[in-house]
Amino acid sequence: METYVIFRDLAIILIFAKLCGLIAAKLKAPQVVGEIIAGLIIGPSILGLVQQTELISGMAEIGVVLLMFFAGLQTSLRDLMRTGWKALLIACSGVFVPLLGGYLLYCCYYGFAPSGTSQFYSALFTGVIMTATSVSITVASLQELGYLKSETGTTIMSAAIIDDVIGIIVLTFVVGMKDPDSKPSSVIISTVLFFAAAIIFGVIIYRIFKYLDKRYPHTRRIPILGFVLAFAMAYAAEKYFGIADITGAYVAGIILCSIDDSEYIARKVDISSYMLFAPVFFASIGLKTSIDDMTPSLLLFCVLFVIVALITKVIGCGLMSRVLGFNTKDSLKIGVGMMTRGEVALIVAQKGLQVGMIQSKYFSAVILLILVSSIITPIFLKMLYKSN
Amino acid sequence: METYVIFRDLAIILIFAKLCGLIAAKLKAPQVVGEIIAGLIIGPSILGLVQQTELISGMAEIGVVLLMFFAGLQTSLRDLMRTGWKALLIACSGVFVPLLGGYLLYCCYYGFAPSGTSQFYSALFTGVIMTATSVSITVASLQELGYLKSETGTTIMSAAIIDDVIGIIVLTFVVGMKDPDSKPSSVIISTVLFFAAAIIFGVIIYRIFKYLDKRYPHTRRIPILGFVLAFAMAYAAEKYFGIADITGAYVAGIILCSIDDSEYIARKVDISSYMLFAPVFFASIGLKTSIDDMTPSLLLFCVLFVIVALITKVIGCGLMSRVLGFNTKDSLKIGVGMMTRGEVALIVAQKGLQVGMIQSKYFSAVILLILVSSIITPIFLKMLYKSN
Repeated sequence: METYVIFRDLAIILIFAKLCGLIAAKLKAPQVVGEIIAGLIIGPSILGLVQQTELISGMAEIGVVLLMFFAGLQTSLRDLMRTGWKALLIACSGVFVPLLGGYLLYCCYYGFAPSGTSQFYSALFTGVIMTATSVSITVASLQELGYLKSETGTTIMSAAIIDDVIGIIVLTFVVGMKDPDSKPSSVIISTVLFFAAAIIFGVIIYRIFKYLDKRYPHTRRIPILGFVLAFAMAYAAEKYFGIADITGAYVAGIILCSIDDSEYIARKVDISSYMLFAPVFFASIGLKTSIDDMTPSLLLFCVLFVIVALITKVIGCGLMSRVLGFNTKDSLKIGVGMMTRGEVALIVAQKGLQVGMIQSKYFSAVILLILVSSIITPIFLKMLYKSN
Repeated sequence: METYVIFRDLAIILIFAKLCGLIAAKLKAPQVVGEIIAGLIIGPSILGLVQQTELISGMAEIGVVLLMFFAGLQTSLRDLMRTGWKALLIACSGVFVPLLGGYLLYCCYYGFAPSGTSQFYSALFTGVIMTATSVSITVASLQELGYLKSETGTTIMSAAIIDDVIGIIVLTFVVGMKDPDSKPSSVIISTVLFFAAAIIFGVIIYRIFKYLDKRYPHTRRIPILGFVLAFAMAYAAEKYFGIADITGAYVAGIILCSIDDSEYIARKVDISSYMLFAPVFFASIGLKTSIDDMTPSLLLFCVLFVIVALITKVIGCGLMSRVLGFNTKDSLKIGVGMMTRGEVALIVAQKGLQVGMIQSKYFSAVILLILVSSIITPIFLKMLYKSN
């Protein structure tokens, strides 16, 4: 292959991703969905303009790591500490009910999956995909409605932050089980070891960055070393702990989230990401999603997947809120606010594909979930808050 | 290969490139040289930590296109128009004397190269590499000395801008000759056709961007569409005109250099570039440069290459300045100021390697040229200006 072909591929990916992203935004759907649809359009299913190459899949991988690093950087440890046990319990319940729901859905649809079989992992991973909340759409809606700083608003925000952390731990644990010889106990040990190492190592790294940041504020070396940390931890997580690379990148972001220049690093990561890597990642999801595989049975599964994912989140978060003393309406607001899913669900699904726990045809279900949840959540929230 | 290995490679490249770049800067040498040496250290010649993979060479290619796009964006068409015929003549002479010098050096060293043979192209390309001035070091020195706005200072700046454009045209023409069946006439035609198409197409693109820029200033779509243009033109140049992809990217930058948001685009390109793609490119040069091939004969060639490249630039620019009425000392200042070479020389050499006109062992000569010229030019300039 002539090297200049990569420029054609990148030009096509970028322009289609941006155009479809803008159209999606105009239709009040998330841009991400537009970018994935762009990948579908230019991929083998429809126009066949771009093929997956080693370069594109490599850049997509880098894109994922940058997105997770960015997510970690945006975490506020102080907020996390302050949120208290209410948000923690809501988040836990909001992770485990969908996890169970996804597992049961898969079992009901494809038959019972006994522990340890490959079908068991597929069922479990279906649940894992359902766990990750992405509140950006909820935040935008609450801001528009003027309820972001209300009690339900801050509870949603706090629960969503903790939800991310718990989701990552669950993912880490489940991916750790991919090795057929691995015992649950050894998975627990390596997961615990990783987080222990991350804390010890993280404190040292944090001090080094804090020193560098004080000495050389706003210099290029800070974000570049941030990249180095993200890549190194992504690698080390997989290589030495058998843990997902995205977990490593996310933790790298959390380590740096409280240094003075964390916003500065985040901006550079964001620019590198949205200019090239993120569109390539989202389009590559589309490239991998073959709509030729779409059978009536799979379509039904996708629809059920979306319904279960939405309802289990509302039940998980809402019921726990009710138990914790919120009134029924506020509990419902919290449940609905936590319902949206975004790129993290996709990243998790991509990881599941990589370790062979799910098949690429289920991407359609995830994309549908993102699309549907992003469209209906703002509508439901408006109804709930306006009827006050 | 496990996908997570790419993160190890990237982490190693970034940290070594940044460290060696900082050390180089401390030693008053260009950072670029440090980054190349980083590639040498981690490459097969010394530590063997990182291998060239399809992903790394692909990212290096993207890095080159971004660097050239950035160079084009930084061009000021208004300055270019205003500089007048003096700078034009100095730049022309400063391109053609080194071109001839490089050709003759190769012939003297390796024997006469008759037109049309592969040796002829190697000889010619040796000259082409010598043409590209990179005045960033000169600018920094003149600024420090307080002579940037002097007559010699502005003449150097203007000549350097034109030098870039002429250098690109020469490169375009020479690369066009790579096809053994191509006649010089057809190369001239495709070169002319490309620039004609670029002008016509460029005016339309410029209008579109100007409109978008007015309507959506400082939105992400502007730099993303800029990337699309750079990649598309890099591809189109190679595919439809047989012209170097870097020419296409450079011209894309020139097309956009006068829109209001050109600085905004340039900043995004710069960040994407220095955070990841540029270090990967420079390190990949080091990865490709095998110091095992370094024979006494090659070493002598490298030294002669540097001497010829420096002297021909001083003669080419200095003599023409003298002819145009500058006094001897000022002519010498202009000649010395134009002597520095930088990343463009490397990019050109990389192109020559790609089309098979030179061998990778000559990279050492180019690296030495960048290093030596960047170190001695500030010293010479200081001596010349201080003895005023």
